[in-house]
Amino acid sequence: MSILAIAGGVGGAKLAAGLAAVLPAGELTIAVNTGDDFEHMGLTICPDIDSVTYALAGMNNREKGWGVAGETWAFMDMAGKLGGETWFALGDRDLATHVLRTQALRGGQSLSAVVARMTAALGIGQRLVPMSDDPVRTIVSTDEGDLAFQDYFVRRQCAPVFRAIRFDGAERAQMAAGFAAALGDPGLEAIVFCPSNPILSIAPILSVPGVRDALMRRRVPAVALSPFIAGQAIKGPAAKIMGELGLGTTPGAVADQYAGLIDGLMVDRADAGALDGVLVCATDTLMRDPADQARLAREVLGFARKLAD
Amino acid sequence: MSILAIAGGVGGAKLAAGLAAVLPAGELTIAVNTGDDFEHMGLTICPDIDSVTYALAGMNNREKGWGVAGETWAFMDMAGKLGGETWFALGDRDLATHVLRTQALRGGQSLSAVVARMTAALGIGQRLVPMSDDPVRTIVSTDEGDLAFQDYFVRRQCAPVFRAIRFDGAERAQMAAGFAAALGDPGLEAIVFCPSNPILSIAPILSVPGVRDALMRRRVPAVALSPFIAGQAIKGPAAKIMGELGLGTTPGAVADQYAGLIDGLMVDRADAGALDGVLVCATDTLMRDPADQARLAREVLGFARKLAD
Repeated sequence: MSILAIAGGVGGAKLAAGLAAVLPAGELTIAVNTGDDFEHMGLTICPDIDSVTYALAGMNNREKGWGVAGETWAFMDMAGKLGGETWFALGDRDLATHVLRTQALRGGQSLSAVVARMTAALGIGQRLVPMSDDPVRTIVSTDEGDLAFQDYFVRRQCAPVFRAIRFDGAERAQMAAGFAAALGDPGLEAIVFCPSNPILSIAPILSVPGVRDALMRRRVPAVALSPFIAGQAIKGPAAKIMGELGLGTTPGAVADQYAGLIDGLMVDRADAGALDGVLVCATDTLMRDPADQARLAREVLGFARKLAD
Repeated sequence: MSILAIAGGVGGAKLAAGLAAVLPAGELTIAVNTGDDFEHMGLTICPDIDSVTYALAGMNNREKGWGVAGETWAFMDMAGKLGGETWFALGDRDLATHVLRTQALRGGQSLSAVVARMTAALGIGQRLVPMSDDPVRTIVSTDEGDLAFQDYFVRRQCAPVFRAIRFDGAERAQMAAGFAAALGDPGLEAIVFCPSNPILSIAPILSVPGVRDALMRRRVPAVALSPFIAGQAIKGPAAKIMGELGLGTTPGAVADQYAGLIDGLMVDRADAGALDGVLVCATDTLMRDPADQARLAREVLGFARKLAD
């Protein structure tokens, strides 16, 4: 039996860590967004893959929600002195991931292979796979023009008004082999959309040719976790963006983002209420600590299994 | 008026810092060995340029003799956890130099341009120039075969017996424009060979086409500082290598390395004594601190000026 989790950044990493805690290692595959990836200081940086990796390794910084716990910033300090860019924070430990990954990618290795080797080195037994080994780059169209994702997200702190999003390179990208294998696994039991930003984190994954079709044709239950509680995002700009697009942040608005892709939506108790087309399950969705993550993971798996009956 | 210093690693960095302390900024050019440069973890590392840069910026680690003072090692620790190589120590601050330099070189900038920008960013007013913008790579032939320089120097700690040295790429390398300009400067007053390893640090500079000829045709005094005191190297494998080559470590052996290139040799008081062909000046050559560096710089400049009379 196996579970496929589809994840973006912080919320995805938290639920992925919960699922990893409650499932046997061999039974979980986590497919991760790479639309946020970018080149910075000559390094290939994969923020969502790294967030999930550090969370599964138990070395994530829980206060910041990204990066490595106990991180230090000597590199950034010196880079600033040397006239380098400092708008994107690169911690000293985190930097090892970027340097070694960049070296491996330049040497011709696939991102999947790099992720597999690094997660193994950190003792992670779950399969963590990028959505694609080909570059897909999220571009946000705003009232100030088109912005590369990290320009919008980090440099501009999501201040410009969100108008539209596109995923450059997606039409030529191939689904990563490990992602395709998980989708086609005869032992697949359920698909879980983590409580990630549906537009910034999950839509890029759905933009990879074949992913949406495979999810539409699923023979197992698929459930999503809403990233909102009472209309507010737990972290990040999801509420701001959904508002700027006129979509709102209700359970119905989240379900619309996953139309045809899910059978159930898990929402916070604050958002309990029936929807057309999907079964709604209300629980406490805030994940403050690993215990919350594991509890929510158990509940979402229980919900999916109930849908299979 | 201008002074041209020719420098390798630690000893070169010390005297260069002394010269920088006693000369007006615009009057000193330091040409630095790049034969030690190598690619590691996908980064271009220039150990001698960095030693001189950090020394001139007053941020060098005086205890180790290389790297940045107050350095931290979080990157190395994480790189080791990720399965990366750890035999070459890359400090967190030092790494900013390597990452930004590699990015600039990959973007098509010359090493000279990168060095000029970084030294300016660190407030260094002296001209620091690589011997060449083209790659020259020192290869050491040993009783265990040919070794890339850092394999010999760092990974093997100079343990294999030194047989010969060559400088791959030197025959196709061009002298860096700033080095050529310093050699051809009508205001050039003297040339100083820093107390660097003649074979590992100075010979690669002399291997660049045109350098030896220009030095032979000099119209100003050239003086060298012996890196030995009473037959012992102050730091590094110079004595071991000179011994393994059957050259010895006397002032005469040093002078032979610079045959035709120098008019005077400055040695430690422990090595006082006349030589054929070059004037010898004996003083205290050990540089324990910046005061020693400045004193020795004043003395070597005074020695060179005396030779011009």
